[in-house]
Amino acid sequence: MATVPLISDEAASPQVLAVFNDIRAVRGTDYVNNFWRALAHDPDLLSATWKRLKTVMAPGALDPLVKEMLYMAVSTANGCEYCIHSHTAAAKAKGMSDAQYGEALAVIGMAMQTNGLVSGLQVPVDEAFKA
Amino acid sequence: MATVPLISDEAASPQVLAVFNDIRAVRGTDYVNNFWRALAHDPDLLSATWKRLKTVMAPGALDPLVKEMLYMAVSTANGCEYCIHSHTAAAKAKGMSDAQYGEALAVIGMAMQTNGLVSGLQVPVDEAFKA
Amino acid sequence: MATVPLISDEAASPQVLAVFNDIRAVRGTDYVNNFWRALAHDPDLLSATWKRLKTVMAPGALDPLVKEMLYMAVSTANGCEYCIHSHTAAAKAKGMSDAQYGEALAVIGMAMQTNGLVSGLQVPVDEAFKA
Amino acid sequence: MATVPLISDEAASPQVLAVFNDIRAVRGTDYVNNFWRALAHDPDLLSATWKRLKTVMAPGALDPLVKEMLYMAVSTANGCEYCIHSHTAAAKAKGMSDAQYGEALAVIGMAMQTNGLVSGLQVPVDEAFKA
Amino acid sequence: MATVPLISDEAASPQVLAVFNDIRAVRGTDYVNNFWRALAHDPDLLSATWKRLKTVMAPGALDPLVKEMLYMAVSTANGCEYCIHSHTAAAKAKGMSDAQYGEALAVIGMAMQTNGLVSGLQVPVDEAFKA
Amino acid sequence: MATVPLISDEAASPQVLAVFNDIRAVRGTDYVNNFWRALAHDPDLLSATWKRLKTVMAPGALDPLVKEMLYMAVSTANGCEYCIHSHTAAAKAKGMSDAQYGEALAVIGMAMQTNGLVSGLQVPVDEAFKA
Repeated sequence: MATVPLISDEAASPQVLAVFNDIRAVRGTDYVNNFWRALAHDPDLLSATWKRLKTVMAPGALDPLVKEMLYMAVSTANGCEYCIHSHTAAAKAKGMSDAQYGEALAVIGMAMQTNGLVSGLQVPVDEAFKA
Repeated sequence: MATVPLISDEAASPQVLAVFNDIRAVRGTDYVNNFWRALAHDPDLLSATWKRLKTVMAPGALDPLVKEMLYMAVSTANGCEYCIHSHTAAAKAKGMSDAQYGEALAVIGMAMQTNGLVSGLQVPVDEAFKA
Repeated sequence: MATVPLISDEAASPQVLAVFNDIRAVRGTDYVNNFWRALAHDPDLLSATWKRLKTVMAPGALDPLVKEMLYMAVSTANGCEYCIHSHTAAAKAKGMSDAQYGEALAVIGMAMQTNGLVSGLQVPVDEAFKA
Repeated sequence: MATVPLISDEAASPQVLAVFNDIRAVRGTDYVNNFWRALAHDPDLLSATWKRLKTVMAPGALDPLVKEMLYMAVSTANGCEYCIHSHTAAAKAKGMSDAQYGEALAVIGMAMQTNGLVSGLQVPVDEAFKA
Repeated sequence: MATVPLISDEAASPQVLAVFNDIRAVRGTDYVNNFWRALAHDPDLLSATWKRLKTVMAPGALDPLVKEMLYMAVSTANGCEYCIHSHTAAAKAKGMSDAQYGEALAVIGMAMQTNGLVSGLQVPVDEAFKA
Repeated sequence: MATVPLISDEAASPQVLAVFNDIRAVRGTDYVNNFWRALAHDPDLLSATWKRLKTVMAPGALDPLVKEMLYMAVSTANGCEYCIHSHTAAAKAKGMSDAQYGEALAVIGMAMQTNGLVSGLQVPVDEAFKA
């Protein structure tokens, strides 16, 4: 359960509804997920977060699927249940295959493991990496 | 400074040297970085870690650059200095452009931010994501 | 579900009940929350934790609301569901307004984001900050 | 050492220099710290991050010192060396006394401790906190 | 709910079933827990993870109970709900007494607290620890 | 560099010096490490932290070496450089052999890895673990 009630379309102010409708338009779906409905308690935080996310996740030098997988990786390292579910679902919607998902998980697990080993051993950074 | 001395080629046992030489062969470089030289204090841990990493990071359904960027993302979320330096350097060596790096950082930053917002608001997972 | 059963007043030893009653007296409520009822399996850990928390959270150079918000911020960064709920509720009980909550979340999100960017870029600490 | 060279004023593009100069104007200092000089490799990321940070950290329902302490708390939980130094310095510059700093550290330490105990015990959230 | 359906024995491929049966044989139980049933979507990841875990957790210079408690400690610091439950249960099955559990929690809480204090104060490593 | 100057014996108040001397007496060494010298800026925080740590780390149902290894594990998961160095050194001083250290690292790495896999897959807790 969230620390705040989720804001429905009916309860949304015009500023909030405008953001909800932009989310719908950009994503090509009528569905507005719970994150935005919780954030809507602070309309400025909602607007700023959506505006920035829309820009960051747009196609660019990296394709949107790679961006979703990076989002999934960070969220997994942070253990953010909601974010893992939403960005894994988004990656699948953008075409992530079962094989790609399995490999991404394997890389994430490997990174977690060696992050732990490096941390425990306090390995000094090689001069070669600093060039 | 590491919690253990780094093992040079000269000080390496035959088992350790065999791993060092496989690292050289697979990566096409004579350079063996500090992580492996620290791990070498436990030859079985060294062998198992290298063997698994070699498999996980090989080309597959995801290309090696995407794998390096996922590794970089996890390491950044965990704040692992060594891992960030080594995998950012590896991603650059595998062709990551400045524009790709900037976008990856933007996604990582965005993910950190919304991980924090979702965590603070304790947003419940949408049924739609559970399908 | 906890890894241990929660200890009710009826099941509490005299040492545990004395802590429960001190919690009631200090907080001006009859309610003893689940954290203390789980900790009660180790009466010394319960006593030591409550004694220290009571001191740390008392009014001082920082007012109790600021202390609750700092607690909420740390708990959010750590993704501790229980702690986020309990300290957000406590902050609201101590007068945190909706506007203050929204701004605190915005700061927490911003901090998470720049923590990620700084980590990814491995920015060196300015000499100016070391004075 | 950063993963990118820091951008000096001399090397800055007009877009980057405009951000640097806005940082100077808003903060009332000629000093632009390393974070911005590293971010400047991606002028859009620099602009977006500064624009948002300027808004979030401005006086509002919470005073700027409280905001800096929240930033310090999140950065400490995340173990971000640069961020801890910069926001501790900023909090001191905004008037944080030694007594306030000591109390903030005590709260942060207490939160870390009980986050760990709650996590280890997997304490279920009280219904009372969900109201 | 997992991001993938759990694989039952009936739905398991021969490769997957062989791993499930080895888990049963090594642990002396018919029960195969959910982690392995989720991992089974990627048979190679399943095999590699089980093979390594079996080796790492076997009796050696450290006894299996100490290994389970170390696993529990890492999982608690990372806030991994599933891992905390499974490794706390495993530690109890391997003989962890209530007193040992209480002391382990107290050490974990203390470590979290001083990790936070050290992080906030950015204490430099003593030369004496680098020998 | 710390955010505060380290307090030498000469600069210590009688309250602080009494703690320093108790550290010396309990540990059987003349050396007081930097953590305590940084904490000494807040004598009450110093006293409370030392008093609690002394109790928690004393021999009990777990032997002191196991306690140091648990401390090392939590500190490694949190990436706390100072804490990793100090508690690895302490574990070695209490008799941790190279083989024990290697196995502890292997367990920590394994735990990090499966924490990541479980987190990414969002594996539901088995009913069997909740008994």
